[in-house]
Amino acid sequence: MTVHLVGAGPGDPGLITARGLELVRRAEVLVYDRLVAEELVAQAPAEALLVPRDAHEQDEINELLVALGQQGYEVVRLKGGDPFVFGRGGEEALALVAAGIDFEVVPGVSSIAAAPAAAGIPVTHRGVSAQVTIVSGHSADGGDLDFEALAATGGTLVVFMGLRRLPAIAEGLIAHGRDGDTPAAVIAAATTPRERVVTAPLGEIAEAAEELESPALVVIGDVVPLRSRLIPMEAHA
Amino acid sequence: MTVHLVGAGPGDPGLITARGLELVRRAEVLVYDRLVAEELVAQAPAEALLVPRDAHEQDEINELLVALGQQGYEVVRLKGGDPFVFGRGGEEALALVAAGIDFEVVPGVSSIAAAPAAAGIPVTHRGVSAQVTIVSGHSADGGDLDFEALAATGGTLVVFMGLRRLPAIAEGLIAHGRDGDTPAAVIAAATTPRERVVTAPLGEIAEAAEELESPALVVIGDVVPLRSRLIPMEAHA
Repeated sequence: MTVHLVGAGPGDPGLITARGLELVRRAEVLVYDRLVAEELVAQAPAEALLVPRDAHEQDEINELLVALGQQGYEVVRLKGGDPFVFGRGGEEALALVAAGIDFEVVPGVSSIAAAPAAAGIPVTHRGVSAQVTIVSGHSADGGDLDFEALAATGGTLVVFMGLRRLPAIAEGLIAHGRDGDTPAAVIAAATTPRERVVTAPLGEIAEAAEELESPALVVIGDVVPLRSRLIPMEAHA
Repeated sequence: MTVHLVGAGPGDPGLITARGLELVRRAEVLVYDRLVAEELVAQAPAEALLVPRDAHEQDEINELLVALGQQGYEVVRLKGGDPFVFGRGGEEALALVAAGIDFEVVPGVSSIAAAPAAAGIPVTHRGVSAQVTIVSGHSADGGDLDFEALAATGGTLVVFMGLRRLPAIAEGLIAHGRDGDTPAAVIAAATTPRERVVTAPLGEIAEAAEELESPALVVIGDVVPLRSRLIPMEAHA
């Protein structure tokens, strides 16, 4: 294996996997996303080459990983969350396969469940929700969400990176029949010291979350009120 | 904190989080699920009390966690996958809250993405799927799945613990309009040495997966064929 696509987890550096941390600690090159915790980047060997991903387009990253792999380096591509859950890891993996480079995918804790958990919200709960639907707020394809299908979907709806388009998403769901009183929450910078959580009915959530900043995850459904039972009121007053 | 609800990850002991492993290594009592890797249980201190969950009903586990917490032990409740994704962690957490016991939830890598990843299937992929819907194959509530809504849902469908009811699930989806040619995969014992993967069109997947054993996860959708591009053919012939 020469290129390891590693999920860094949702934010808290303690939530990387044991295997992922081991790989970071012996990386020769570490290519990392903007949202990856500094503490994890600091775990790379002092002599490792550090490449922040920010400065590069996805195609450039693919090419960079191929080039580094061809030179035989132990490369760790450290990505926020999980590489294969809205992480574009599949594109990087396909580029590596096309170039004949060995690679490994090391899954990570995705924010799709960890962010709600940090806010005291289980995405599934017996008798409340046995289904989770996850969509991306800003589709890489630019396509719009299928609000009709989403509004009709039971269980918990999780919108990944949904803050910027939250007003349109809430409006679209309500216009297609979802009750404006449906409980909703926005969790920003989950599992980090900058974490902020806002809850409100779907019809008011966009306004309530106005001051939050990305990255943020939106949770919609009857699991949201579990938060008030799972986190003592004084803790999130 | 006295009771830690910790996700052990999908199977491979290397996929527990760094924080989770640290907690197991200093646990006074370790209450663990049947599917948790032996290697992780072995990480508990030699003097720790080990309680396999198998022998207990959920209510008994809740009571046990409360009793241990009340006695002030450092308790680690080690659960397969993620505690809040079909893990019934919310029920345990509510029991602890009701008894006034401090607890912490440490998310884990859920098999919902890690099992497909191990089989070379990203649950999201640009231009192929930007939506994931997750349901449980055997609902704790005994309720049936809403096949009409599920058949109409776009993107990737993941069925957690779906092996036993796979014939009924495939039939229900097709009866409600899902194409029998939709690509499908079953991944059993993902990320462990016993891992087995079977792919077939939805109309044939139940028969193709007949010899697999639980735990298994079902993936349905156009991301499945990415497997043949991401894993060289000789590796899964």
